Amino acid sequence: MIQTLRKSEVMMENQERSSSRAGMNGGGPKKLVDLLEDPLPGVGTYEDFNTIDWVREKSKDRDRHREITNKSRQSTVALLRSLSDAFSGWLLMLLVGLMAGSALAGGIDIAAHWLTDLKGGVCLIGFWFNHEHCCWTSNETTFQERDRCPQWQSWAELIVGNSEGAFAYIVNYLMYIFWALLFAFLAVILVRAFAPYACGSGIPEIKTILSGFIIRGYLGKWTLITKTITLVLAVSSGLSLGKEGPLVHVACCCANILCHLFTKYRKNEAKRREVLSAAAAVGVSVAFGAPIGGVLFSLEEVSYYFPLKTLWRSFFAALVAAFTLRSINPFGNSRLVLFYVEFHAPWHLIELAPFILLGIFGGLWGALFIRANIAWCRRRKTTRLGHYPVIEVLVVAALTALIAYPNSYTRMSGSELISELFNDCSLLDSSQLCVNVSETGVGNSLADRPAGEGLYTALWQLALALIFKMLITVITFGMKVPSGLFIPSMAVGAIAGRLLGVGMEQLAYYNHDWLIFRGWCSPGADCITPGLYAMVGAAACLGGVTRMTVSLVVIMFELTGGLEYIVPLMAATMTSKWVADAFGREGIYEAHIRLNGYPFLEAKEEFEHSSLAVDVMRPRRGDPALAVLTQDSMTVEEVETVVDSTHYSGFPVVVSQESQRLVGFVLRRDLLISIDNARKRQDGVVSTSQVVFTEHAPTQPPEAPPPLRLRGIMDLSPFTVTDHTPMDITVDIFRKLGLRQCLVTHNGRLLGIITKKDILKHMAQIANRDPDSILFN
Amino acid sequence: MIQTLRKSEVMMENQERSSSRAGMNGGGPKKLVDLLEDPLPGVGTYEDFNTIDWVREKSKDRDRHREITNKSRQSTVALLRSLSDAFSGWLLMLLVGLMAGSALAGGIDIAAHWLTDLKGGVCLIGFWFNHEHCCWTSNETTFQERDRCPQWQSWAELIVGNSEGAFAYIVNYLMYIFWALLFAFLAVILVRAFAPYACGSGIPEIKTILSGFIIRGYLGKWTLITKTITLVLAVSSGLSLGKEGPLVHVACCCANILCHLFTKYRKNEAKRREVLSAAAAVGVSVAFGAPIGGVLFSLEEVSYYFPLKTLWRSFFAALVAAFTLRSINPFGNSRLVLFYVEFHAPWHLIELAPFILLGIFGGLWGALFIRANIAWCRRRKTTRLGHYPVIEVLVVAALTALIAYPNSYTRMSGSELISELFNDCSLLDSSQLCVNVSETGVGNSLADRPAGEGLYTALWQLALALIFKMLITVITFGMKVPSGLFIPSMAVGAIAGRLLGVGMEQLAYYNHDWLIFRGWCSPGADCITPGLYAMVGAAACLGGVTRMTVSLVVIMFELTGGLEYIVPLMAATMTSKWVADAFGREGIYEAHIRLNGYPFLEAKEEFEHSSLAVDVMRPRRGDPALAVLTQDSMTVEEVETVVDSTHYSGFPVVVSQESQRLVGFVLRRDLLISIDNARKRQDGVVSTSQVVFTEHAPTQPPEAPPPLRLRGIMDLSPFTVTDHTPMDITVDIFRKLGLRQCLVTHNGRLLGIITKKDILKHMAQIANRDPDSILFN
Repeated sequence: MIQTLRKSEVMMENQERSSSRAGMNGGGPKKLVDLLEDPLPGVGTYEDFNTIDWVREKSKDRDRHREITNKSRQSTVALLRSLSDAFSGWLLMLLVGLMAGSALAGGIDIAAHWLTDLKGGVCLIGFWFNHEHCCWTSNETTFQERDRCPQWQSWAELIVGNSEGAFAYIVNYLMYIFWALLFAFLAVILVRAFAPYACGSGIPEIKTILSGFIIRGYLGKWTLITKTITLVLAVSSGLSLGKEGPLVHVACCCANILCHLFTKYRKNEAKRREVLSAAAAVGVSVAFGAPIGGVLFSLEEVSYYFPLKTLWRSFFAALVAAFTLRSINPFGNSRLVLFYVEFHAPWHLIELAPFILLGIFGGLWGALFIRANIAWCRRRKTTRLGHYPVIEVLVVAALTALIAYPNSYTRMSGSELISELFNDCSLLDSSQLCVNVSETGVGNSLADRPAGEGLYTALWQLALALIFKMLITVITFGMKVPSGLFIPSMAVGAIAGRLLGVGMEQLAYYNHDWLIFRGWCSPGADCITPGLYAMVGAAACLGGVTRMTVSLVVIMFELTGGLEYIVPLMAATMTSKWVADAFGREGIYEAHIRLNGYPFLEAKEEFEHSSLAVDVMRPRRGDPALAVLTQDSMTVEEVETVVDSTHYSGFPVVVSQESQRLVGFVLRRDLLISIDNARKRQDGVVSTSQVVFTEHAPTQPPEAPPPLRLRGIMDLSPFTVTDHTPMDITVDIFRKLGLRQCLVTHNGRLLGIITKKDILKHMAQIANRDPDSILFN
Repeated sequence: MIQTLRKSEVMMENQERSSSRAGMNGGGPKKLVDLLEDPLPGVGTYEDFNTIDWVREKSKDRDRHREITNKSRQSTVALLRSLSDAFSGWLLMLLVGLMAGSALAGGIDIAAHWLTDLKGGVCLIGFWFNHEHCCWTSNETTFQERDRCPQWQSWAELIVGNSEGAFAYIVNYLMYIFWALLFAFLAVILVRAFAPYACGSGIPEIKTILSGFIIRGYLGKWTLITKTITLVLAVSSGLSLGKEGPLVHVACCCANILCHLFTKYRKNEAKRREVLSAAAAVGVSVAFGAPIGGVLFSLEEVSYYFPLKTLWRSFFAALVAAFTLRSINPFGNSRLVLFYVEFHAPWHLIELAPFILLGIFGGLWGALFIRANIAWCRRRKTTRLGHYPVIEVLVVAALTALIAYPNSYTRMSGSELISELFNDCSLLDSSQLCVNVSETGVGNSLADRPAGEGLYTALWQLALALIFKMLITVITFGMKVPSGLFIPSMAVGAIAGRLLGVGMEQLAYYNHDWLIFRGWCSPGADCITPGLYAMVGAAACLGGVTRMTVSLVVIMFELTGGLEYIVPLMAATMTSKWVADAFGREGIYEAHIRLNGYPFLEAKEEFEHSSLAVDVMRPRRGDPALAVLTQDSMTVEEVETVVDSTHYSGFPVVVSQESQRLVGFVLRRDLLISIDNARKRQDGVVSTSQVVFTEHAPTQPPEAPPPLRLRGIMDLSPFTVTDHTPMDITVDIFRKLGLRQCLVTHNGRLLGIITKKDILKHMAQIANRDPDSILFN
């Protein structure tokens, strides 16, 4: 009984749907059917590892919105529903901001801080306190010695009761390695056991997903939970990786999960991607405490379809997240990030020369890093190395801990290192980099000073740390643990910048009378700020690796808060990008996308070849003709034969095989589901039934089986280009409209089809790469 | 002789062109002809008041770029040319930044400052000094009395030798009115005489131009010169207008003129618009000293096609301009703007209520202002009022001066007023708004204070100023002088905000024990910052009028520099936008675009109606069939008949009248030029010659005149949609690809055409507006 009812419902819906389409045509008063509910479950959805059709998704959402608006005029309840629908976007943004800002970023910060400190020792008041917190709680320290208190004991003190001497050092060393290995092991095991998608930075995949690709489970709850936990472990293990990139992934997971609360976003892939774009902004906003920079990062680096409405909402979400994080105050200084800095000294035009030098260094390093890292990752993919991810992680973690411990600059975490390097020396600062203060003693405390003994040691250590960081990051990024690239890149740049800055400071101190220093750097003045050099270097290296531009400068600007430091940052970032681009135009994320064979059509680069659509379309010359369906002259069986004998995702529908005049386009998935459903439920549809795509079924002999009407699942407005369309225009159309496929016509006749994959293969071919590296459609 | 040579050149070029197109088709090694030079002068250019074809322009630029790249592999000179071509964009940006920042913004600031002060008096040391500068130069003043010095004499002192008493007041009053009238008269006369396009804010027209419209002379040198001079005069005349909006126009003029230095930008309408987008950012950057805000303003409010490359370059140009302006230092305080502020007091969550109240006020005022202003401007357009622009300006200027002088808050210039209202009271401040200091005397100088007598007077004056500004701005904006809306809108909001802020302060002072103040506002504390309220109010009103969102918040953020004030600003801006949108979704600029009938397709709003392409296309049902050309069966005479009997801008080319299968699209202008040219130059082309659009001319009888081959001017890749394409998708395609027209097919047959104008007319019809208000194509 129930089945019969449902059957007739389906039939009615099918008829209503096609009659509503026909009704629209008439231009009279339009009766709208409920387009919110799909007539058949599954029709209009996508398979895993497939590209969505942006135009169809957006059109679906507009239909939905139109229907709600129309209804809202009829009753108060519907009006309220319409209002709640309009505000659900904002509510969702608020939730994303709150969740990403509080539960995750704050939690990750606090946990990572604690675990990192655990490698060095433990708090006797409670093992859950981190070093700083432990000494605050103890209340026995002065300001100078805030990180030394009896309650915090190093492992040597705890185990052998002694904190001095070689033996204690070795005990601490071993415990450091032990914890590092334990954390790394847990991280890689958890990733393998629960969510393989949780590894890496996630930004390449998110870029691909935002461009319209489907990877089921990539933004799911298991990935979220696993990534959050393993990120803390991986960061704490001392590996050369950061948490900033993965935070973007974590924020996107949050957003994706929260999307399920709202029908509007759950059911529409395009709308959901708007939310994910905002979530990417949220991720960077909490990572760097830079809401504007985060939004620009999402706009510049991650997003594909970023309408202005999304810009405004992203900004809102980023701000909510930043303020949530600040009210949690994970660093205990009411700053959003560990490396907030405030410079006071101005810079001089002549200093642009070293800044540009840093830009060149950053660009070179970026280009080199990308090549080395991609080569290493390709080796991991193709050789037996890839079969032992756990051992790989353990070996790298052991190596890192072994080398890092003796050098205080590599022993501290990446963000602490950056924070120290960005810092300007002042009297209160007890950093080794500022020990030259004690030598001069008197005079202006901020003035340039001659280097002391301690500083030379520090410089040596820094130089070694630079080499170590440069090498280890290449093999670390891409391992099967969550790993961000922002912090290691910035650390490399900051070290190089600080070294150059100190060098400049000494040069200026001993050579006040040189032409280049004369006039602006008198003796006793504070003319060179090594911290600024570190910052510029960090921006240059990050720029070289990721090829970010505006967003990078704005993020750095938000860290310092001074508009006058934008110019050095901009000079370095521009140089870095130009230098790196000269070696290869891809940033690290694009390179990883290509390595993984995702179908990503880069929006930034122009298609520069002069080929035409006819050169790219399938079927190629000599291939069998394009598989098409006719609008009213094929039986169910014939259609099934066509579908089964090919692997295409969709088929054009033409008037007749002879005329090849295009009527519409039907997706394989929809076709299969509909035929299957009709066979099961619809009376009398058999293999010899005629498949009809026209509005009115052609007259048939009375004894013929009832036709299968499929106009409802056909896309009546497929995109077409002519065979003479230059490919640069075609690529532009694909990018801007987010197409999946496009039909090619010649003088009004259907000639072939171009899919996104065809375009990517063609582009690979032009660039002398393997076209078969593009794996997905 | 020369003519014969040129003739054969043209023929060769035509042949080369068509053979190169055919060659591309083959897929073999491609021989490229010089596509940089048009085969015929005029082909490929546009008429005045017409829409450009973005796709064609961008494709042209890619052809050019490809050719340069190909050549660069051949010789070093060509490589250098290619490099210089690549960097010409940056060079152009540098020049735009320098020119807009220095010569114009700096010059305008200084001149306007001087002329504004001239209304009150004159400097005896030299009449070219403004008030402040005069007293600096005199060196006889203390810090407190920096604006009172014997060298600066009011007109009364100079004329009647007395600065006190009623008579002196009247003399000053009259002189003030005299100067105001003189400046206003000069401004309107100069605009009428030299450049009618110099009037208004220019932003509506620039939005339209950036969306792909051509208005010749709108960004020319005469407009630049006239606008710069008259802007100074108009601002100085005391009219309720600002210079911020017009600065965008001035910067775009600079950019457009500088574009002529580079072939790349001179010859390509699309590339030039990239530069103009950046120039809009430069304009706002120098107006508010907010480079990031300027770029976002250009992105959000003005631009249409804004690729990421432009974002980065805009940022560069905006920064160059801001730093140029700062090194000129027009305000003598090394700040970029007059109303830079620095707040120190935090705000409390409860204060969000008054901030949202300000948002509601701003939204209401914005909606009301737009309606009133548009009604007034429509009246000016349709009644006799519009025939007397000079008298109108003089009457409004006289009225403004007459009412403004007695009230010190309206007497000062708009930006001074805003600066005063934004200011936080401190001991050094001698402003009337802060006179309550003297009463309490002791204690925390920053604490909330009871209001003194002087403050009550100031509040009354402010309230009157508010009403006056609200009324006078409605009739001022849109007059035939350069007039910006930013400053008047912000002034209205700042007054309202300050009034509310002082109210809150008094409330908190007398009611410390109220629940809402308890806990955060103890007696003697500085809990309410009236300056912040003024700032929030200014943002709310500006947001209500222009519907800016992100850019507005970022501009305000850059004025204050404190991240924590973003939340109040955002709350107010969001509320303001929502409230204003409830009354009508158009901002003031869109409203003016519509008033002027420009063909502007708003990118922000979704098309929400359910019509199909077939409902919008021409010919409508019952109209005569679409005028088409056939590819090889029409004579020159027949083509001319078709062209002459219609007014369409272009014609589809079909295989034959019977099949209606589409081959290409040819523009009327190109067709006329080519036929005209062929008749003049090409041997034997007469009225009976066959017009051939195919690759190979059909065989003809030997005595027939030679055919006219026009494949070269035909667009071989016209855009098509099917008749069933929903209009929301069609509108999306038009917006995203920047189309001018699109052909409509049904089952592969040509059915009709949709132009941008058709879409705009259809949209007007849906919104119950007059479709004939869309004037241009």
